[in-house]
Amino acid sequence: MPNGGTVAELGEFGLIRAVTENRRQPATTLLGPGDDAAVVAAADGRVVASTDVLVQGVHFRLDWSTPEQVGRKAVAVNLADVAAMGAVPTSVLVGLACPSATPAEVVKGLADGMWAEASGAGAGLVGGDMVQADQLVLSITALGDLRGRPPVTRSGARPGDIVAVCGRLGWAAAGLAVLHRGFRSPVTVANAQRYPEPDYAAGPKAAEAGATAMIDISDGLLADLGHIAELSEVGIDIRTGQLEVHRRLVEVGTALGADPLRWVLTGGEDHALAATFPPFVELPEGWRRIGAVTMPDSGVTVDGEPYHEESGWEHWR
Amino acid sequence: MPNGGTVAELGEFGLIRAVTENRRQPATTLLGPGDDAAVVAAADGRVVASTDVLVQGVHFRLDWSTPEQVGRKAVAVNLADVAAMGAVPTSVLVGLACPSATPAEVVKGLADGMWAEASGAGAGLVGGDMVQADQLVLSITALGDLRGRPPVTRSGARPGDIVAVCGRLGWAAAGLAVLHRGFRSPVTVANAQRYPEPDYAAGPKAAEAGATAMIDISDGLLADLGHIAELSEVGIDIRTGQLEVHRRLVEVGTALGADPLRWVLTGGEDHALAATFPPFVELPEGWRRIGAVTMPDSGVTVDGEPYHEESGWEHWR
Repeated sequence: MPNGGTVAELGEFGLIRAVTENRRQPATTLLGPGDDAAVVAAADGRVVASTDVLVQGVHFRLDWSTPEQVGRKAVAVNLADVAAMGAVPTSVLVGLACPSATPAEVVKGLADGMWAEASGAGAGLVGGDMVQADQLVLSITALGDLRGRPPVTRSGARPGDIVAVCGRLGWAAAGLAVLHRGFRSPVTVANAQRYPEPDYAAGPKAAEAGATAMIDISDGLLADLGHIAELSEVGIDIRTGQLEVHRRLVEVGTALGADPLRWVLTGGEDHALAATFPPFVELPEGWRRIGAVTMPDSGVTVDGEPYHEESGWEHWR
Repeated sequence: MPNGGTVAELGEFGLIRAVTENRRQPATTLLGPGDDAAVVAAADGRVVASTDVLVQGVHFRLDWSTPEQVGRKAVAVNLADVAAMGAVPTSVLVGLACPSATPAEVVKGLADGMWAEASGAGAGLVGGDMVQADQLVLSITALGDLRGRPPVTRSGARPGDIVAVCGRLGWAAAGLAVLHRGFRSPVTVANAQRYPEPDYAAGPKAAEAGATAMIDISDGLLADLGHIAELSEVGIDIRTGQLEVHRRLVEVGTALGADPLRWVLTGGEDHALAATFPPFVELPEGWRRIGAVTMPDSGVTVDGEPYHEESGWEHWR
């Protein structure tokens, strides 16, 4: 691929070639990019599918993140949804809209990041579409396979269940606070905002261990557990004593005059997984208990009390 | 859903409720909208998947089309890709980005059109994402089932094969010419630009009849046959005597001083299906012969000669 130049100069077909050429597909990709549609193995006889859209200036900033990091993030947020059903990711489709003056290198960087994240999860980037728009928009669809298990939905939690999480909480929110103030360090914290690092295997492992409900934390722990509480018609109580507030977050909170526990409870975009498990179950590796499912109508509480801070992100509100 | 109001006033969750509530899902939708991901039947053990992105001002105009028509179009262009593999559509996922001042009624109209088109093809609208952006962007992913047949790709055409099409050619281009001049009639021609009406069943029927290659005509007949010619390493010759140039297109061409044959040969967006079949095959209902597959390296010709007009649409060029 030539250096320099815009997507307009390279043209649609040149661009598609540049981002798909010489990429390694997994065995589940029966027919990859280049035809009217892709064909992906769905050995289970069912397919799990999820779509997320990321918009420049809303979900990412190219002055904060490299195109590779944005590409990773766009794919990761979708694969985390697939994992949260207990499914194993198989493939990713990409809708990319961008201005004609976008440097071809930016699109190449986005594609590199998307391929890296997909490959790391065992999935192929099997198809997509690239079109012209005023603003850079990435729309990703991820597919996955349930391997014969029932999907783990948001609606199966029962009073008495354990509430557990796998993955970091509050890091992306802390990173956002850091970047908003114009800082670039600590880099591990800033990077947590740039792209999440979900443990995709944790979803199927939780399903295998008998998880009764599961969700990925995209809007914030309390907000997303609220979805489980609502759809399962239960209450959920979080114990702050069981929540890890990492030393790094405490340091950043102190430096910025912010409450690190609030990041952990309400910060989105880490794409950790939260799930409920039957009592006395042995939690799979990487999962840690943070609370319990309680009786209906108590909502989501923190140490038995309602939490009064704004508890998550909702678009357009 | 309340009348009036913007998407910002309704909020993300209110909006999702408004567009998904009380919709009828087909039996293939095992788990519909409302969880981290959908679960769709893939009885065949493989899933066909395609993504297309439509941008306001580029792919549609809300001063030309109603939101319902735009919604139909967005879904139709994707389902046509699934049909062009010989697959039966099962489901659709929708990524929608729009400004916060977008009237909620516009989004409701888009959703109505998407549901109508998907339902008509037997597919369910199983999931999606709605986010804020500067411009209205629709990214649709369609899934389909091959019913045990191999996919019909672009690369299987062989010299001697019949070239055939199913569906209208040139109508959307004629409609574009009409709308561009500020006319709104003939309404059948203008509507052909507003939304295509692909015969989705024609794809699986062609596959069953032994089609060797297939594509949907999104960029223009010659351009899209060019993809088959390139990937199959063959030439294709179209016989204008076998092409239907509908009386309506002749009338509009005469009125606007345009060549209706050029619309038929190069006009995109009708999403007719083009396929190649072994010689002596009986073409399925609705399919008509328009030419033949020739020896490699002759490219796509019209009555044995190269066609010198611009032959199709390419983004950013």
